[in-house]
Order: sequence, then C-alpha cells, then structure tokens
Amino acid sequence: MDEFDLIDTMVEILGDVATGTEVVVGPGDDAAVLEVPTDHQLVVSTDTLVAGRHFPANGQADVIGYRGMAVATSDLAAMGATPAYATVALTIESLPEHWARPYAAGIAWAARDFRLAVVGGNVARGPCSITVTVHGHVPAGQAITRAGAQPGDRVYVTGSLGGASLALAEPGLESCGLRDLNDETALRRYWMPAPRLAFAQALRGIANAAIDISDGLSSDLAHLCQASGVACRVDLAQLPLFAGCEALAAATSGDDYELAFTAPAATSERIASLARQSGVAVQDIGTVSTGQSGRIEWLHDGAPVVVPRGYRHF
Amino acid sequence: MDEFDLIDTMVEILGDVATGTEVVVGPGDDAAVLEVPTDHQLVVSTDTLVAGRHFPANGQADVIGYRGMAVATSDLAAMGATPAYATVALTIESLPEHWARPYAAGIAWAARDFRLAVVGGNVARGPCSITVTVHGHVPAGQAITRAGAQPGDRVYVTGSLGGASLALAEPGLESCGLRDLNDETALRRYWMPAPRLAFAQALRGIANAAIDISDGLSSDLAHLCQASGVACRVDLAQLPLFAGCEALAAATSGDDYELAFTAPAATSERIASLARQSGVAVQDIGTVSTGQSGRIEWLHDGAPVVVPRGYRHF
Repeated sequence: MDEFDLIDTMVEILGDVATGTEVVVGPGDDAAVLEVPTDHQLVVSTDTLVAGRHFPANGQADVIGYRGMAVATSDLAAMGATPAYATVALTIESLPEHWARPYAAGIAWAARDFRLAVVGGNVARGPCSITVTVHGHVPAGQAITRAGAQPGDRVYVTGSLGGASLALAEPGLESCGLRDLNDETALRRYWMPAPRLAFAQALRGIANAAIDISDGLSSDLAHLCQASGVACRVDLAQLPLFAGCEALAAATSGDDYELAFTAPAATSERIASLARQSGVAVQDIGTVSTGQSGRIEWLHDGAPVVVPRGYRHF
Repeated sequence: MDEFDLIDTMVEILGDVATGTEVVVGPGDDAAVLEVPTDHQLVVSTDTLVAGRHFPANGQADVIGYRGMAVATSDLAAMGATPAYATVALTIESLPEHWARPYAAGIAWAARDFRLAVVGGNVARGPCSITVTVHGHVPAGQAITRAGAQPGDRVYVTGSLGGASLALAEPGLESCGLRDLNDETALRRYWMPAPRLAFAQALRGIANAAIDISDGLSSDLAHLCQASGVACRVDLAQLPLFAGCEALAAATSGDDYELAFTAPAATSERIASLARQSGVAVQDIGTVSTGQSGRIEWLHDGAPVVVPRGYRHF
C-alpha cells in the first residue's frame, strides 16, 4: 500500500464522518471548502500530541487517534463553540495498514462522538505525533473567552479531576483499545476524554470566562485569572475527585479536559439546572476576587495551603 | 524563559500579524474567534514539515518558519482562495530564545507576505516539525478544485520548475537566512516559495481545475487528472525551466509550489493578460484528453518519453 492508497483507505473508514451539510469539498483536494452559518463566528484551535511525551508510544492506534481528536475538541468546549470540522495531521515513521486502519477508526469514532466532520489532513514520515486543528461555530459575539471573569464570580469545575493521572500508573495503559473502555475507569478518562460540549454551549451568555483543564487546575485556572486580570480563592476540599485520587493530585494533574469557568453568583441555580439537563456534574470550588492578577489563594477547609503549578511543557 | 514567556515573546514579535479585521480573539485564549465574510466559504488546509525530511534540520529558524507558512499557503492558491488566518504548531526538543525569536520573525514575515493573520498555535516538546493550518475565503461556489478539468482544456504551469531541487545541492542551504535571499536564486525558491495567490484568485471562474506542485509535476498533474477523470498530454520541451535545471528533473522534482491548472482553450488570451497583470509567467504545456483517468502521456518535441512519478511520502 502506498501513501495515497492508505489515505484512500483512511477516508473510506471515515465514511460519512468526512462529509456533512457544511462540507462543500472534503478530503482529497488541495484544501477543504466549508460553509459557516450566517451570523456565526468561526472558532479555531490546534493541538499537538507527541508520542512518548503526551501519550505512550506503544499505545493502541485507535485510542491514540481518539485522544488526539478529544484533546483538540476540548478547546472548542472551553469557548462554548459548537464543533463543525477538523483536519488531522499525522507524522509517523511507517504506516502499515494494521496501524492505519484502527487509527482511522479511532478518529472516526471521536468525530462521531463530537459531531465533527474530518475534512482533510496530512500524513508525513517522521517521529510520531498528531496535530489536530478543530473548527467550531458560535453565534456572533457569544464565544466564552478566558478574559471575562469578574470579582465576585463563583468558580466552578465540571466532572471530576485526577482520573487521567491515575491511568498513567495502570498496567493496561498501552494495551487497551477503544472497545476495552466502556466503563468510566481511569484508563477511559485518559484515552477518551469527554469534552463538555453541550454543557459549555449552554453556558453561553451565563459564564463570564472558561478554560479547559489540560495542564492541571492550578495552572489553567491561573491562566484564566491572569487573562481576566483577577485573582481567586479556591478550596481544595471542594474539588470533585475521581475515585481514588487525592485533592492535591487532582489540583495539579492534567489530561482530564474538564472545564473550569466562572459565572456571577446570581446564576448558580441556573447553572445547576443546566448541569442536570446535560448530565454533567458541576462543583462550586471558590470565588473570583480582586488581587494580584493570576494569583490563586488555595485553602483547605479554610486554612491556607501551598499548591504547585501543573504540567510544564518546557 | 519558560514556555509561556516564550509564547508571549513570539506573539510580541508577530505584532500586528496576530490581529486583523477578521480576528475577534487572537492568540492566547483556548481558541481563536474569527469572522468569515458574508456569502463566502471557508477554505482550510494543513501541512506538516518534518526536520531532516522536508527541510534540513540545521537550517536557520527564520527560513524554516517562512517555508512552513509558504508550503501550507500554497494550497490556498491552488483553490483560488484569499488567505485569511493560520495556526502554527511547532514541535521542538528545546526552544531557546535565540531560536524562538528568528523563528517567530520568519512566521511573521511570511504572514505579511501572504496577508495571513497568525491567530493561534501550539508549542510541544519533541522531534522538530511544523504543522501549519491555513484558512482562506472564496466567494461561495468559486473554489477551484482538482476535479473540474475537461477534455480539450489547455494545461498550464506558472513560473518555472526545478529551482527548489537545485537548492538541495547548494552549500548555503543550511546557513542562509531570510536576509540572504533577496535574489531569485535556487535557495530562495526552496526556502521562500511564492504561492501564486493573486493570480490564482484571478483564475476563479476561468480555470476548470488547479493543483499546487509540491511533489513534482508528474505526480501532481496525475492527481488532478485522476480527480477529474481525464488524461492529458504534456510536452516536456514546453516546461518552463528554472535556470540550470533540465526538463526531466523539472517534471519530477517537488518543492517549487507553482500551480498547474487547466482552462478552456478559448480563455488563453484572457489568461495571458491576467498573468501579465499579476507579474506571473504562465506556460501552456499540453492538453487535457479523454483516456485512462489520471494518465499523463509525456512527449518531448512530439516523441513519447517516459517520466517517472515525483516524491513519494512513504
């Protein structure tokens, strides 16, 4: 199989995932041609996962593909955007069919879960990495940025934290494929993060600021506060913990792709209602305050504690 | 300097290249938020360049950045699209400031040349590669695909072929930076390809099909013919050659990022006029024909010759 046969095979596996009402020209031309709904803005984000750094190099091809898509799509959730289409650039030393097929199946699985059309990409020879660029839409002016948090806002996180970090110590990390991940285990949290898309879209017009937790709450919430020019106070004892994870680990570990967001205290009932409708747990963990921009004051049951930053890329 | 300082520095170097009338939210948030003009479609393409494979690993950072942008933008030219915005994902083992600064300057230089806003990206640690995703716009329905070539169309190429391949043998390939590339040398052709953007936009409504020549004319024209379900006949003696390059090498070498396109014979005067207005040379090299889909019949002054395929990725 040469490169073009392989790409044809992958496009075939993608099937209806490579098409959609907004896709005028899909994979196979020099570029994709796409519709953007009237009165909407385009939301775009790019993420790279490097083998041996952001995922185990010997992991199964289907979960690698799925995770690449999920990690990028999480940034659309963080903006309150509705997913629309993605391009996927794979770099790999060799591309045997027994790897390409499950990889494409993993991409397609994620694309269906997140309602993304896969409209193009690239295959290059080299050390393994995946770069996914995701595109979503928001009604004009309704994107939720990091920069809108206001003193007095409540601080929330979705779901639970720390699950993905537990997976890194599990013996099945490299051997499990998508079909082994039906239950809400740590391994599933790591390989199949669930961007909080529907809930985030419901937060448009309610949340003042949002970010997805990729490097760890302690880092990412600081980024949100810095972009907003505010500080905040967070109680470790309030963090929603994945079963078996301790609070300090949950505050500093990445890869969960939950959302942290802030909203006026007056909207708390509405947020609780939206959370129930979306089937997403939401936990109030603290308060936005004036103070040094980007500073997080960590407490544990009211007493000050020190919480280090999360993952650093360099 | 940590990662976030470096990203801040790079965004600072990008300056007004990170903004634009269509950029609502630029670099630094979870995703960019962008406007798409009314009655236009979005055109998207992703390209990866791997160090040591698609460019010399010891090349200068500024030309590496420039070339990454140019190669991706060439796909917008191939569609007749107007460039709008790009995201840039860099993977690199370490990111010292003395590399990051010229790299960002090269990205910014290309962004200005092609009128792209750099709206986001990613920096990851790992073996060096660059993945650029470019976005352009076309008036709805006016994208030029690979699939529209008609029997009887003339086949054209822009500029000249083979220059970039000559650069690979030049001693200055690794040492030259953007400031050394003021003349139309082979080295400039390699590091600073010039996507034929303005001319390609002028071809909307005239050209029936187009492709950019990345892997070599013999490969890329075959892709165009296959997508269109046609064959073609091309005369090697008609190829526009970069000074010092032979016809067979020019037909099979990649990296020039010129355009190959087809248009009805009746439009030849108009194409010549548009070419003069754009300052781009255009050469008629052959004819689209019925026959086996994707087949190119190569001649040299009327006599059949064998021309191999160009670059293969795997």
